[in-house]
Amino acid sequence: MATNRGIVYIKPGVVEVQDISYPKLALGDRKCHHGVILKVVATNICGSDQHMVRGRTTAPSGLILGHEITGTVIEKGRDVEFMDIGDLVSVPFNIACGRCRNCKEQQTGICENVNDARPGAAYGYVDMGGWIGGQSEYVMVPYADFNLLKIPNKDAAMEKIRDLTLLSDILPTGYHGAVTAGVKPGSTVYVAGAGPVGLACAASCHLLGAAVVIVGDMIPERLAQARSFGCETVDLRKDATLGQQIEQILGIPEVDCTVDCVGFEAKGHGANAEEQPATVLNDAMTVTRAGGGIGIPGLYVTGDPGAKTEAAKEGSLSVRFGLGWAKSHHFHTGQAPVMEYNRNLMQAIMHDKIKIADAVNVQVITLDEGPQGYADFDSGVAKKFVINPHGMVY
Amino acid sequence: MATNRGIVYIKPGVVEVQDISYPKLALGDRKCHHGVILKVVATNICGSDQHMVRGRTTAPSGLILGHEITGTVIEKGRDVEFMDIGDLVSVPFNIACGRCRNCKEQQTGICENVNDARPGAAYGYVDMGGWIGGQSEYVMVPYADFNLLKIPNKDAAMEKIRDLTLLSDILPTGYHGAVTAGVKPGSTVYVAGAGPVGLACAASCHLLGAAVVIVGDMIPERLAQARSFGCETVDLRKDATLGQQIEQILGIPEVDCTVDCVGFEAKGHGANAEEQPATVLNDAMTVTRAGGGIGIPGLYVTGDPGAKTEAAKEGSLSVRFGLGWAKSHHFHTGQAPVMEYNRNLMQAIMHDKIKIADAVNVQVITLDEGPQGYADFDSGVAKKFVINPHGMVY
Amino acid sequence: MATNRGIVYIKPGVVEVQDISYPKLALGDRKCHHGVILKVVATNICGSDQHMVRGRTTAPSGLILGHEITGTVIEKGRDVEFMDIGDLVSVPFNIACGRCRNCKEQQTGICENVNDARPGAAYGYVDMGGWIGGQSEYVMVPYADFNLLKIPNKDAAMEKIRDLTLLSDILPTGYHGAVTAGVKPGSTVYVAGAGPVGLACAASCHLLGAAVVIVGDMIPERLAQARSFGCETVDLRKDATLGQQIEQILGIPEVDCTVDCVGFEAKGHGANAEEQPATVLNDAMTVTRAGGGIGIPGLYVTGDPGAKTEAAKEGSLSVRFGLGWAKSHHFHTGQAPVMEYNRNLMQAIMHDKIKIADAVNVQVITLDEGPQGYADFDSGVAKKFVINPHGMVY
Amino acid sequence: MATNRGIVYIKPGVVEVQDISYPKLALGDRKCHHGVILKVVATNICGSDQHMVRGRTTAPSGLILGHEITGTVIEKGRDVEFMDIGDLVSVPFNIACGRCRNCKEQQTGICENVNDARPGAAYGYVDMGGWIGGQSEYVMVPYADFNLLKIPNKDAAMEKIRDLTLLSDILPTGYHGAVTAGVKPGSTVYVAGAGPVGLACAASCHLLGAAVVIVGDMIPERLAQARSFGCETVDLRKDATLGQQIEQILGIPEVDCTVDCVGFEAKGHGANAEEQPATVLNDAMTVTRAGGGIGIPGLYVTGDPGAKTEAAKEGSLSVRFGLGWAKSHHFHTGQAPVMEYNRNLMQAIMHDKIKIADAVNVQVITLDEGPQGYADFDSGVAKKFVINPHGMVY
Repeated sequence: MATNRGIVYIKPGVVEVQDISYPKLALGDRKCHHGVILKVVATNICGSDQHMVRGRTTAPSGLILGHEITGTVIEKGRDVEFMDIGDLVSVPFNIACGRCRNCKEQQTGICENVNDARPGAAYGYVDMGGWIGGQSEYVMVPYADFNLLKIPNKDAAMEKIRDLTLLSDILPTGYHGAVTAGVKPGSTVYVAGAGPVGLACAASCHLLGAAVVIVGDMIPERLAQARSFGCETVDLRKDATLGQQIEQILGIPEVDCTVDCVGFEAKGHGANAEEQPATVLNDAMTVTRAGGGIGIPGLYVTGDPGAKTEAAKEGSLSVRFGLGWAKSHHFHTGQAPVMEYNRNLMQAIMHDKIKIADAVNVQVITLDEGPQGYADFDSGVAKKFVINPHGMVY
Repeated sequence: MATNRGIVYIKPGVVEVQDISYPKLALGDRKCHHGVILKVVATNICGSDQHMVRGRTTAPSGLILGHEITGTVIEKGRDVEFMDIGDLVSVPFNIACGRCRNCKEQQTGICENVNDARPGAAYGYVDMGGWIGGQSEYVMVPYADFNLLKIPNKDAAMEKIRDLTLLSDILPTGYHGAVTAGVKPGSTVYVAGAGPVGLACAASCHLLGAAVVIVGDMIPERLAQARSFGCETVDLRKDATLGQQIEQILGIPEVDCTVDCVGFEAKGHGANAEEQPATVLNDAMTVTRAGGGIGIPGLYVTGDPGAKTEAAKEGSLSVRFGLGWAKSHHFHTGQAPVMEYNRNLMQAIMHDKIKIADAVNVQVITLDEGPQGYADFDSGVAKKFVINPHGMVY
Repeated sequence: MATNRGIVYIKPGVVEVQDISYPKLALGDRKCHHGVILKVVATNICGSDQHMVRGRTTAPSGLILGHEITGTVIEKGRDVEFMDIGDLVSVPFNIACGRCRNCKEQQTGICENVNDARPGAAYGYVDMGGWIGGQSEYVMVPYADFNLLKIPNKDAAMEKIRDLTLLSDILPTGYHGAVTAGVKPGSTVYVAGAGPVGLACAASCHLLGAAVVIVGDMIPERLAQARSFGCETVDLRKDATLGQQIEQILGIPEVDCTVDCVGFEAKGHGANAEEQPATVLNDAMTVTRAGGGIGIPGLYVTGDPGAKTEAAKEGSLSVRFGLGWAKSHHFHTGQAPVMEYNRNLMQAIMHDKIKIADAVNVQVITLDEGPQGYADFDSGVAKKFVINPHGMVY
Repeated sequence: MATNRGIVYIKPGVVEVQDISYPKLALGDRKCHHGVILKVVATNICGSDQHMVRGRTTAPSGLILGHEITGTVIEKGRDVEFMDIGDLVSVPFNIACGRCRNCKEQQTGICENVNDARPGAAYGYVDMGGWIGGQSEYVMVPYADFNLLKIPNKDAAMEKIRDLTLLSDILPTGYHGAVTAGVKPGSTVYVAGAGPVGLACAASCHLLGAAVVIVGDMIPERLAQARSFGCETVDLRKDATLGQQIEQILGIPEVDCTVDCVGFEAKGHGANAEEQPATVLNDAMTVTRAGGGIGIPGLYVTGDPGAKTEAAKEGSLSVRFGLGWAKSHHFHTGQAPVMEYNRNLMQAIMHDKIKIADAVNVQVITLDEGPQGYADFDSGVAKKFVINPHGMVY
């Protein structure tokens, strides 16, 4: 009888490794003959998992976590035609059917057929369709022919598996933020947040040819990590304003593009800053030049039970929108459509154009170390935790 | 000695026709050898003029109004090379140098060289560089070779002058809103606001091939005007929500694209709605489908002395941003870069592809009737007032 | 035992209606559990069918013709999830798997999984994967969840079935030519060819807001058809050059964009013109303004056994490429990716934004009248023949 | 009395340094009050100069050569407003007015107001408007406010002047080829030609994030130069086909994108290849994957007196167009609009994102060494010659 183990959300602040069901080719009553079962090679802890674990969502106890998954195909449904047993595959965190209007338009982050509640789904995430998470030994992936990215040359790939595991979410997410902000060769960019997505965005900006990439955060270790691969940094605990710090770097207090890799759990500036959910948006409008673009991969929610104000509990933020208007800004929000980017980013990894594991400081841990990884990550360490449930990652 | 007359802002609620200076090829000490002097053929009253006249800005008494100008060249500076005396020309409301980075990128709404205070300028507008307005007999246009759109075939053009006068602002502005919202053949669109910009936007949506154009407003006459050229309408005074009214039209409560042609002076819904500056933005996120675009030509300001709340006085609005994020919306703000569009729209007018004067219900008035035009427009009549200072428009 | 009848290519110049096999959910040994069987509601004769029937390809005797198909689902494979029995559907002529790199990028015209010989497939067409044609009573469509466009509101749709049947090929094909040529509101366009694709392209240009659409051909009836919906025309049998004729219409001898709706079977100009396969391409470079775009939906082949020269037999044409280079032209070739456009064009049809059946002069015929339709079409009549195998089209 | 010296085309194979007129702010009778006179800091010999010097054009004896110019402003016309004496500036090779429709659309390569014969002009080039070349001590640049790119921080800039001098032509030209071919992060690219434009294109592909850049040529030294900065290479003198050689590198015989940096003076393949002007275009269609893009910055001409065939003398080439059509290729031709790119590329140079001088192997020579530079360049050396008329480049 096949067994399985995975990381389970218990209550705010608590996750545990538990025995869980071995995956079926189904989601409840919904048959998934189009699905495959993966032996998980690598699965990462994500900052958006932290929103749940910190109790900032309505995630139910018992939810199996994990939406950043790389694995090998060990079983396939009868309708799977283009994937084979043994294939090494990267799984986009957004689940998509490949048949609806949005999928046909490459908007796989808002697929219409995989979540009864609203467009868009993900593995192991509250309000995202109920699909089982992949911080586990085995996981089921539906619509496998469409969703999976087959990684050719498995031996060469396993040499870079610490990088390739980041194709499932944070690399395309950071990259999407950069692309939608308009980053291109010669751009100056401000990346808000030096967590893994922020660092992945900064590395993406370099890949896209940006001239200067400035990363802002309040945690010195994360800023040091950003500097390790050629970024400039600003420390938001300082008294100097963001614009002033940018001016010290560029000679002018503005950048061409800004990417918000923080989202709604943002803090204000200064040494004793408190949570101010619109801080990053307002900063972005302040420091982005007229005509510039603002990419917003950082998560904003429609309801936030842990917010400090009644308005914020409903997801309403005090945004100085007129400032953006006066500067003709454009804003791009939402989940990255991973599939739009992952193939090209895989090529960039395989040909050494981006060293993303180093950029985000991957640390490989066992499944049993997962709960400690959550705790460490929450403390703000400058690491990206990659869970290695079968000891296949070195 | 050349004389001139124009419409002057006196104080909230009061404008007057006064004798004003005949234009010089200069702005204060700044020589404008690159400028021309126009005999004004047509010049329109704009909704954004109303913001000033209603006292919602810091416009100083004595400001000569008017940024929607069509005229004939009667004098040209020594540096003007490609315009000739007698040319009939349309003037984009945004003043641009044609030499800065933004102008080179077609972002003429945020030219860096025509306003010391910030990027972007306009004729006769507060904080927009001090250039003299054109609701007058004569006006100076700087950087004429760059700014002016020469209208070929003057005789044929004068037959359509009621349409062509709308090229200076509201037609490109409405069109820009539609284009940035992603309107294309087959789209369903919600246009918030049935004032002249809203109606111009709706007509632009038709020109762009939209399948269904739904216009929302609270003034029955304006909604009737929208229906006169094939739009569907929703009456925001009703109890039914916007989504419910859209569902009655489309069968679903969402549209592909939304254009905000209202801006910060928005009211809430229902029969006794009060001002709620973020209403339209929040509506837009509610009724735009996941993945859809939101164009925002409606004006949002960085400071609003007449606002109801302290936050709004600083231009901060309570925006339910998480809703847009969950739907992967993109938002495009700012002044329309008129020059990007006016040549093509002129072609569309001359070849009868758009009947824009009829759509916005142009009413031609004399210069002396201007103050009455302001009053009537402020009352919400479904008309676009075109001032005819030399009796050249029939 | 289910029966079926369809139009079969016998030899150059000869097609017949024959009893053919009832469709299976398979292509030879390839199972198509993802497929559906359609009762064909409407299926059209296409100009590209004529290339085969005129003997200009290597099509084998016995090939069942037809790639323009609209039908109702009467049987579905076990893997079909989002289509239901009874659905009215439009079938893109390009067959696509919905799982390969190209399909994911909306390039469904060059799917990698449906034709062993090269990317791209179609129903009933030589070298296009061997899929059985649909000028028949029943036909099988593979990858049905992906390929089919469900037409909502069946009753309303049947009222417009003469229009909707054109969604399978010529309307998206003509539209693709216009879009890739850069047609937009205010454009002036030259459409080479007034056959059904040329007329569909011209109608698409109007939908896209073009200011002037000029259609060129040598057949007076086809030019009259173009004029019937607001196009200008040039008669290529005349002595006046194309540029001269365009100048008579526009005042200048150039247009903004050109669309080649003729392809390799082009003739030269003048009363006794012979076949010159590069004529239209060279014309396009001559009459398109510098910086303009050239869309090329007209078919060019890699081998043409019926060509007049050895070079042309291998598909090599004498192109005056330097002319295009000097004018910075861009060229877009290939099959239209129908799926990118058909949903929006369906909306445009349903909301009366385009009258495409009238534009191309649809004539509905029975299946048995099919061979006569081929003959009439080959003679150059200004009609689009729509076969009505079950008497469902009125 | 101000003096000047420059390189003059005498006859095929012969150029000389001669005393030439000191520049005036005029072109014949056309006053250029908008112009500046530059002291030339660096001016490069270009492959397109070689077309003239090899007698493949109708360039007249006495033509002063040179269109790749960087200089300092030493005199300015009365209408120049935003450039100052002493500014270090890069001059786009394409001369543009900044006032016409094409310039407003960033298509500065086909300006309508600077060449009576046709859109587009350049310094020191046959049929390009008669503007005097800049391989000289001093040169006049018209429409200076528009054309010039001011290089900030002159001291830092002079440290990188060997790189910055390439902003006037070959870097933006190679980059334009890459951009129009669709090169982006992860792309595989074939660059035809390892001359300076080919190498600049290859370096641009790296800047754009390409995964693999394959450069083809027949000259071993040039291929070695390409390998020096991370390119793969194919030697076209070999018997193996281009596709076979690409397959040895990539595992498949196709690339995502191809850039033609050769143009009409192309040779066929193999050890004793002769001129075959369509070779590169036909190669491009052969090795570019279906759906891929082909950028064509390499020059194709409308007339070639030195061509081998009558057709080629008129610029007609035997192109296997059907092959591209079957693969849905798109083709982008023409002069690069330098201004669209030079500012961003300057930023990339100043921030060490591209080492373009090393990539193309800049060799600095004196003005008097210019004729020898022409001869050496024509012999196929893997160098880019930068003339240093005032000894300012080290």
